[in-house]
Amino acid sequence: MTWLPSLITETPEEGYEIAILLSRVAVKKTQPDDAVRAKLRPDYANNADSLTQVSLVVATNFNTVAQANNYWKD
Amino acid sequence: MTWLPSLITETPEEGYEIAILLSRVAVKKTQPDDAVRAKLRPDYANNADSLTQVSLVVATNFNTVAQANNYWKD
Amino acid sequence: MTWLPSLITETPEEGYEIAILLSRVAVKKTQPDDAVRAKLRPDYANNADSLTQVSLVVATNFNTVAQANNYWKD
Amino acid sequence: MTWLPSLITETPEEGYEIAILLSRVAVKKTQPDDAVRAKLRPDYANNADSLTQVSLVVATNFNTVAQANNYWKD
Amino acid sequence: MTWLPSLITETPEEGYEIAILLSRVAVKKTQPDDAVRAKLRPDYANNADSLTQVSLVVATNFNTVAQANNYWKD
Amino acid sequence: MTWLPSLITETPEEGYEIAILLSRVAVKKTQPDDAVRAKLRPDYANNADSLTQVSLVVATNFNTVAQANNYWKD
Repeated sequence: MTWLPSLITETPEEGYEIAILLSRVAVKKTQPDDAVRAKLRPDYANNADSLTQVSLVVATNFNTVAQANNYWKD
Repeated sequence: MTWLPSLITETPEEGYEIAILLSRVAVKKTQPDDAVRAKLRPDYANNADSLTQVSLVVATNFNTVAQANNYWKD
Repeated sequence: MTWLPSLITETPEEGYEIAILLSRVAVKKTQPDDAVRAKLRPDYANNADSLTQVSLVVATNFNTVAQANNYWKD
Repeated sequence: MTWLPSLITETPEEGYEIAILLSRVAVKKTQPDDAVRAKLRPDYANNADSLTQVSLVVATNFNTVAQANNYWKD
Repeated sequence: MTWLPSLITETPEEGYEIAILLSRVAVKKTQPDDAVRAKLRPDYANNADSLTQVSLVVATNFNTVAQANNYWKD
Repeated sequence: MTWLPSLITETPEEGYEIAILLSRVAVKKTQPDDAVRAKLRPDYANNADSLTQVSLVVATNFNTVAQANNYWKD
């Protein structure tokens, strides 16, 4: 079973969720320890600049997913 | 009801608004607590570098939205 | 009246001006207070790294504008 | 024998692994000493902002790999 | 007379020079005072991370210029 | 003689080397003094976040080179 069966989604909103998933998995693969990640969560969830950078990663991934789906125009 | 029904807009300005929306939703989904986000707002709204990074996220998302709309050339 | 009637310009230089405009509007929409933005200006205009980040935002937006104009090859 | 025989993969998940590989090799080529890299690992693996930046690099590389594979739509 | 007559160049190296030009002009337009920019120069020219960020801006602009020139394949 | 005769390479690995070259030349052109660059090297080669940023620049350039080579699919 794969965590990423496809980049293709029915709707833009579902595509955005894939972009968030792509952003999180890179973190998980770099720091696989769930307890450490949980401990780090307040560090970025309560910091304005950290949240902006998270949003930049999602934006970069959403660009990929949106293009994969031809911007849901079909 | 979805927060992102479509990437397609009538005008470039409306597309830019979608880019801002895309940038904000990633923050909201990472920090869902409205009170925390409100408290963080002065941190980036009064910091030059933070504002530049916000603008980078919007630029990345606007690239996606503009391409989706074929740059409003049709 | 819209601040962004079109991404299409006659020349590359005019396209670059649109890229700067796109970069500034995201800041303005995040910090709408003109007095605050004016106060922040020296913070980034006198800091080398801040200016580099501003240039990154313009580069990202110019990529969009240049593609919209088919790189002014037509 | 090359470390990068191809960008083409069977599945999106394998493509994501290539994106991670591409991200790591640039670090390895800049700091080839295995012992130094091992020593640096806790610095980013235990820092929220560092992990976000790692994720940005992976996102940028995944954009390339996904496009190479036509988003695994064929 | 324009500072950016065209994105089209004869060679990749000339295209890279345009990418550097594009990167510098955004700085110049944000901080038009030559004396201030000259004073800031050592700040980034002697700082490893600053130089890396400058290189990121050039890379982003080179992506645009290379695409404009169809990667000099014609 | 040019330092960048072409973006076209035989293999993905050679393309990656071009991406590294593109990343380094921007640094060299901004800080042409070999002795200064040599002195700065430990600053980024021993810093996790600096290495991640170097990898981001390479990723951005590799995107350009990979597209130039049609992802080595021909």
